[in-house]
Amino acid sequence: MRKLSLFIATSLDGYIAKPNDDLSFLKLVENEGEDYGYAEFMANIDTIILGRKTYDYVIKQIGSSHYDNGQRDVYVITRTERPSAGRTIFYTRNISQLVNRLKSEKGKSIYCDGGAEVINELLKHDLIDEFIISVIPILLGDGTRLFKDGRPEQTLEFITVKTFESGLTQLHYKRKKTNNEPPTLYMSKKG
Amino acid sequence: MRKLSLFIATSLDGYIAKPNDDLSFLKLVENEGEDYGYAEFMANIDTIILGRKTYDYVIKQIGSSHYDNGQRDVYVITRTERPSAGRTIFYTRNISQLVNRLKSEKGKSIYCDGGAEVINELLKHDLIDEFIISVIPILLGDGTRLFKDGRPEQTLEFITVKTFESGLTQLHYKRKKTNNEPPTLYMSKKG
Repeated sequence: MRKLSLFIATSLDGYIAKPNDDLSFLKLVENEGEDYGYAEFMANIDTIILGRKTYDYVIKQIGSSHYDNGQRDVYVITRTERPSAGRTIFYTRNISQLVNRLKSEKGKSIYCDGGAEVINELLKHDLIDEFIISVIPILLGDGTRLFKDGRPEQTLEFITVKTFESGLTQLHYKRKKTNNEPPTLYMSKKG
Repeated sequence: MRKLSLFIATSLDGYIAKPNDDLSFLKLVENEGEDYGYAEFMANIDTIILGRKTYDYVIKQIGSSHYDNGQRDVYVITRTERPSAGRTIFYTRNISQLVNRLKSEKGKSIYCDGGAEVINELLKHDLIDEFIISVIPILLGDGTRLFKDGRPEQTLEFITVKTFESGLTQLHYKRKKTNNEPPTLYMSKKG
């Protein structure tokens, strides 16, 4: 089955942005030629799920070609109906149903690109299979939390940690399989 | 100058306890003969600061000998006056003044043993010099957060990360020095 992965940066105190969507703390770890594994990670992704606010933010900051480039299926979770644009689909229905359908289909991995609302909705339904979390060496003190209160408990399997010259530490976990799921090795052989 | 250190365990989603002070998630990483560096860390500590609730909790769970053993000065931060017991002092005044006084005195390092209220009060005044944070491979979903909202931004210096067989990852940071402070090397030479 396809997996749903999170690949995200957070401050040590657990914020993905300062108040007013301020992402300037990411500059702390910006080094030319260092993408912290992003390109390698994205090479195995053919589907992106993200929230409407994050989509609008990125479109405004980087430009529409970041998502609407025909390379991947992009599902923008929104409450407002909007016609699809190429492979970008504005999805207004149940997010669990979407993810379960996508996971049952063939393909590469699915990437949740934020924001916190969508991530926490996925966590509430135990739908995230892999966590790649880059910890930036800063306490932001306030802002948008990666993890909101009111989710179920979920035990993780630690995979690895990578450190970088900038002081960024990248933690990698997988969702712990329950007893009735096949082990990872079997799954990777199958697919 | 003496440093004030934090040595604490948190879930990946940033909780130091589940609701109702439930610490049972720590059992996930309990391995005989593995103390995750605690004894080595404590060997360099001669003073403990902690909140009254944490003090009462530990006294009840472990027994009074955990703190009141004559080995270290213990400052219990409380709103209620109470006579000292041996080297355990119940401190009702300004916590910043206490820490600044202790730091100016000679001695080994100072350890803040929690809880979240005292830690965040210290963070608000930029008084924590060293962070040793053990990340337990679990999402708790709810509980007492290590880092509360409403603190100042604080850039950290990444020191090292250690991994353990249990999946625990121990992150080590230092408070980033401002320009008018001497560098670490100079300070350690001075003693």
